[in-house]
Amino acid sequence: MQIAQPYLLFLGDVTDPLAAKTARGIHQWRPEICLGQLRLTSETVSLDLTDMTLQQAQQQGAKTLVIGTANPGGVIPESWQATLLEAAEMGFEIASGMHQRLSEFAPLNDLQQRGLTKLHDVRHYDEPLKVGNGKARSGKRLLTVGTDCSVGKMFSALAIEKALQQSGCKAEFKATGQTGILVAGSGISIDAVVADFISGAVEAISPEFTDHDWDIIEGQGSLFNPSFAGVSLGLLHGAQADALVLCHEIGRPHIRNLPHAKLPSIEQTIEANLQAARLTNPDTQLVGICLNTSAVSEQEAAQLCQDWSKQYHVPVTDPVRFGVAEIAQKIIAI
Amino acid sequence: MQIAQPYLLFLGDVTDPLAAKTARGIHQWRPEICLGQLRLTSETVSLDLTDMTLQQAQQQGAKTLVIGTANPGGVIPESWQATLLEAAEMGFEIASGMHQRLSEFAPLNDLQQRGLTKLHDVRHYDEPLKVGNGKARSGKRLLTVGTDCSVGKMFSALAIEKALQQSGCKAEFKATGQTGILVAGSGISIDAVVADFISGAVEAISPEFTDHDWDIIEGQGSLFNPSFAGVSLGLLHGAQADALVLCHEIGRPHIRNLPHAKLPSIEQTIEANLQAARLTNPDTQLVGICLNTSAVSEQEAAQLCQDWSKQYHVPVTDPVRFGVAEIAQKIIAI
Repeated sequence: MQIAQPYLLFLGDVTDPLAAKTARGIHQWRPEICLGQLRLTSETVSLDLTDMTLQQAQQQGAKTLVIGTANPGGVIPESWQATLLEAAEMGFEIASGMHQRLSEFAPLNDLQQRGLTKLHDVRHYDEPLKVGNGKARSGKRLLTVGTDCSVGKMFSALAIEKALQQSGCKAEFKATGQTGILVAGSGISIDAVVADFISGAVEAISPEFTDHDWDIIEGQGSLFNPSFAGVSLGLLHGAQADALVLCHEIGRPHIRNLPHAKLPSIEQTIEANLQAARLTNPDTQLVGICLNTSAVSEQEAAQLCQDWSKQYHVPVTDPVRFGVAEIAQKIIAI
Repeated sequence: MQIAQPYLLFLGDVTDPLAAKTARGIHQWRPEICLGQLRLTSETVSLDLTDMTLQQAQQQGAKTLVIGTANPGGVIPESWQATLLEAAEMGFEIASGMHQRLSEFAPLNDLQQRGLTKLHDVRHYDEPLKVGNGKARSGKRLLTVGTDCSVGKMFSALAIEKALQQSGCKAEFKATGQTGILVAGSGISIDAVVADFISGAVEAISPEFTDHDWDIIEGQGSLFNPSFAGVSLGLLHGAQADALVLCHEIGRPHIRNLPHAKLPSIEQTIEANLQAARLTNPDTQLVGICLNTSAVSEQEAAQLCQDWSKQYHVPVTDPVRFGVAEIAQKIIAI
């Protein structure tokens, strides 16, 4: 799955800024591939991008219309259909992270069958995969792991990619979730593959390489999340990571959506992830901790990072507040 | 997925006894639901069952024609098609553990669409599932775990079910793989569900219960198999097991099909499985070890079981050679 770039970001008619999280993520991490935004109404949320029609965007070279919003139920609202059809007829590819597949909308599917468009349903994965084998492969890999879902694993991976590149280290972000795939233009939604192929899918998105320095693999879930831990373990084994970065949100009271499920301790999380990762890479090591400290003041956050850094003997930071330069330096030294 | 019983076992025209393993397993564990066998040629392998035509079997009450053989490539050979079609037209359900779906054979699919037959492709699973939640649920559960794939987890689970039942304990086998599903008449091929739903699928096949004593859940894979460990971890979390039985094959040189992947030690396997299982059941305990000792003499095997039993402080047995009575007694005492 390779999504043609550059993008025109479609914001539809959503008015809740939170619903435009995906578009914002793409724009934040890949501003150079975002030509503009398309909004259906003047009340629609806006990113810091030029408003464009499909025609204007195409003239400027846009290749894919990317649906950058979530909407209730994950289905394509009727108010979007005319625009999506027009884009497809004009030859745009269309990419979506919604639950409902674009190809389930028959007129769009017809246009794809006729070769006019390509539809990218990044939340799904239908291509054949091989089962993982855990064989050592060339190239260095970093994986972000976490105490839970939604603790900043994608953000941290992208921040580390950027910091490494700024230090002259050739790093490539490898996406395993829908927003990450839209940012990177390729990848596999690892939680959407058939269970037998979890580690195999990761081996496919980060095969052996010698043309760059590091693959920075986006983690998913947590070994301690009773809903999704299988995905996280397969990811660890498939990633064959030389380096792990642990992500955690300060103040999270329990596992997301499961009030009865306790968060693991940091020590437990480090130990369990290192142990599991060693199955396919005996030399794996923890190289940093990324915290979401938005629940505390900046001063408290800085103190906390300093304390934890002493306690866990690795750089500890909030990537949003303090960046990841120190973690990047540690990675380069490996 | 509930497969109507009793069965007529279809052996096709396979001449390799190993290829009839599934049929043999069904007959061994559920002789009462196997009315007879259907062989296409006189050279076809035979179980210890009456040969029957479709007509004879139907007269005696057979409800489902079960394809009990493996064949190269996992596809339906041409030589089987006429018989399968005739069975479907007569109103038999048809159940298969092959890779190729019965429903991909258009004439069979037509008969299903017309309501004449039901096709059970037990290696696949298409029904909607919920994600797991790890909430404590009533009823006691045992899960068989292993050092690797194909070390006797299904066999041990079925042997334990039988031994418990013989002791007056109401135990129910819960299937997670294709042969197990054909034996039980229901279940979910856990490695065929979408990765996000591994633990949820196990919660679905063993929901809370108060009408019997134990669910005996068939394990899959191993936490130390780099291809499939994600499935095993999701299974552990979903099973919420009160009791674990560890399965292992004496003399296996390395992880199956992966010469570069070491087998874990027994200590490692026990510790990793107990630790992972505790996430959803803090009181989980190891209640026995089941060995496949076919590589050594019966005398050596007996000695080995005795030695290991002292070493690991649980009953250790080869279920084929020595039965599982002692493990069953330990389970009943919980």
